[in-house]
Amino acid sequence: MTRYWEDFTVGESFDLGSLTVDGDEMLAFARRFDPQPFHVDEELAKETPFGGLIASGWFTASLFMRLYVDAVLADSTSQGSPGLSELRWLSPVRAGDVLDGRLTVLESTPSRTKPTRGTVVLRGELTRAGQPVLSTTFRGLFGRRPR
Amino acid sequence: MTRYWEDFTVGESFDLGSLTVDGDEMLAFARRFDPQPFHVDEELAKETPFGGLIASGWFTASLFMRLYVDAVLADSTSQGSPGLSELRWLSPVRAGDVLDGRLTVLESTPSRTKPTRGTVVLRGELTRAGQPVLSTTFRGLFGRRPR
Repeated sequence: MTRYWEDFTVGESFDLGSLTVDGDEMLAFARRFDPQPFHVDEELAKETPFGGLIASGWFTASLFMRLYVDAVLADSTSQGSPGLSELRWLSPVRAGDVLDGRLTVLESTPSRTKPTRGTVVLRGELTRAGQPVLSTTFRGLFGRRPR
Repeated sequence: MTRYWEDFTVGESFDLGSLTVDGDEMLAFARRFDPQPFHVDEELAKETPFGGLIASGWFTASLFMRLYVDAVLADSTSQGSPGLSELRWLSPVRAGDVLDGRLTVLESTPSRTKPTRGTVVLRGELTRAGQPVLSTTFRGLFGRRPR
């Protein structure tokens, strides 16, 4: 059933499912977008405060996005996002980590200028064995239910 | 010459260079991480407010990261980032767009707990023909110059 703006209820929380971090993909992403030693060079990474290879934060954020799309946006009236007001990388992510996603609706506001659209403020989280590794607060734009 | 925490001066601005958005890569990224219709389906995208395919915001942010790594972090004492306090997607990005990157140092603070580390608050921007398409304010951790 298509999810419209009206279907987001403040305080509602979604289990986004889980995923396992693929080491090869993690490395390929970093080589292309974030080639810092602790993301791309196993030997040099050992000499850094991280003690080994860790995921680019943008890779971790992108993995969160995929969980969010599959669980919530796939069948929705999503019209994208103007941005986010916070994104925190709380713990290094490594190959093989199992991450669980969660989404909570913080605010919901009809558009003042577009009667066919509304905004929701969402809190997204990734955890590993209950320990938070990523959190973010962002806005999502959604089409309203036709009347 | 390696860039230490001390080498970031508040108010200093860096030209990060420019890039052209590759349509195939933009699509492959969206298929994997952000498969919403306006990112992955050319026909369906025409029916959305965007009028055609646009980049996932995470792809655009990752492109910014690559410019930042190449221009500033590659030869630095970067120790990663705890997160960002703002990320705005200001205008849809499309295949073939030429994006210019810029970085400005907003704040610089020595660590209170780790004498070998300091934090900088940075403002990053991507523009297309002078028009802003992405802006972000984030923290970077850097090792201090040995004394």
